[in-house]
Amino acid sequence: MRFCRFALSDGSPRYGIVEGQAVVEVEGDIFERYGATSQIHPIAEIELLAPVNPSKIVALGTNFSLHAKEMGREVPDEPKIFLKPPSALIGHQAPIVLPKVPGQIDHEAEVALIVKRVAKNVPADQALDYVMGYTCFNDISARALQKKDGVFARAKGFDTFAPAGPWLQTDLVWEKLEVEGWVNGERRQHGALSDLVFGVPEVMAFVSRVMTLLPGDMIALGTPLGVGPLEDGDRVQVIINGVGTLENPVVQE
Amino acid sequence: MRFCRFALSDGSPRYGIVEGQAVVEVEGDIFERYGATSQIHPIAEIELLAPVNPSKIVALGTNFSLHAKEMGREVPDEPKIFLKPPSALIGHQAPIVLPKVPGQIDHEAEVALIVKRVAKNVPADQALDYVMGYTCFNDISARALQKKDGVFARAKGFDTFAPAGPWLQTDLVWEKLEVEGWVNGERRQHGALSDLVFGVPEVMAFVSRVMTLLPGDMIALGTPLGVGPLEDGDRVQVIINGVGTLENPVVQE
Repeated sequence: MRFCRFALSDGSPRYGIVEGQAVVEVEGDIFERYGATSQIHPIAEIELLAPVNPSKIVALGTNFSLHAKEMGREVPDEPKIFLKPPSALIGHQAPIVLPKVPGQIDHEAEVALIVKRVAKNVPADQALDYVMGYTCFNDISARALQKKDGVFARAKGFDTFAPAGPWLQTDLVWEKLEVEGWVNGERRQHGALSDLVFGVPEVMAFVSRVMTLLPGDMIALGTPLGVGPLEDGDRVQVIINGVGTLENPVVQE
Repeated sequence: MRFCRFALSDGSPRYGIVEGQAVVEVEGDIFERYGATSQIHPIAEIELLAPVNPSKIVALGTNFSLHAKEMGREVPDEPKIFLKPPSALIGHQAPIVLPKVPGQIDHEAEVALIVKRVAKNVPADQALDYVMGYTCFNDISARALQKKDGVFARAKGFDTFAPAGPWLQTDLVWEKLEVEGWVNGERRQHGALSDLVFGVPEVMAFVSRVMTLLPGDMIALGTPLGVGPLEDGDRVQVIINGVGTLENPVVQE
């Protein structure tokens, strides 16, 4: 199943099910109980929003061993988690706005899982029962501010620094997913989730040991080798097999 | 005005106005339009929750110069911000649960401001128009994990690590506020907000330059000298003049 969140011209967010080039509007809560309505919209006529409205976005640093080497970091012995504010979320085709800050602003193509139900102290062998599905995610990062602050909230927290979408795809086997980052039609990043330092079950167990996860919460699983700077006018894509392509234009503030 | 958020025995959260020992239940949105109902509850019969349900909790590191010295850090040239997950929030008298993790778990008594309306790129000289009021906040921190991770999401993100309350107090002059941290009847921390490295207007300007703030979002303004470890059985208090006392028992997981 492919769920999307979208806006019509009146702006209010709705949920839908994507079927080919059509979106069937649903009513109710996609995490609890929902039903299809008779409203069907051509996908070209709606604005795709980030596929969920999470209470929090958790993200992992250094979770592909090759990316760790690239950044000159050691592979951690346990997941290193940080938070991005929900206000940073944008959907497919919404512009990433580069703020006027020192240093380069990088793309980081990632797979994000979306939490299905309340999760606290979930054992790894049950963790997949708590995952609703996956979406493409771009962990936009102002690298100089990240280094300066040490903590990441500013560097990774600007508005538009969390593109996600185009939709939430269920029924995927995480070990078979691959994520790619493209800029202006050129592939810059590629990683297979089978190469994750901490896989989905371990990540769910680790994060839910710390904090209660709610339906719709997102966990971005880390980025592979090949991050690099974005410039005004670029088009950046995150592609996941079985999910699709999240594309965003880049504009200078 | 003194707004609270509370639960009755049925558990659903409501907003109220505190008048002495009574809470007048309100309907509507305290940030937009609300009205008093005829429901009045003795404050002893309700459960006070964290006074708001924020989309994000921003917090400042090293914002009192004396605390910076204590931690062996330099006073920063601009605010250093991090995020705590809303899942960490608890209200007055709810227990702080110490997880089984290495190292000590510290109290950090703070003043948190609560955002009144959507704020983006707010100039410092207009910033106070965007502040609804203030509440007592305790930035509970697992110190060894904070040092190990470098980023703070885990160390400061455990469930119950963000006590806030007992209510939201409006009509305060921030420069006149003082915050105290008490453990078992002994004062451990004391700081005057007039000594902040970055005051409320600068903090609002800085944070809203990065991320859009929404009504109910919280910004914890940093902790003064005197942080220290909590143990099973402790009672910890955060006291702010003009606001009141946030008290929480401490239990071991």
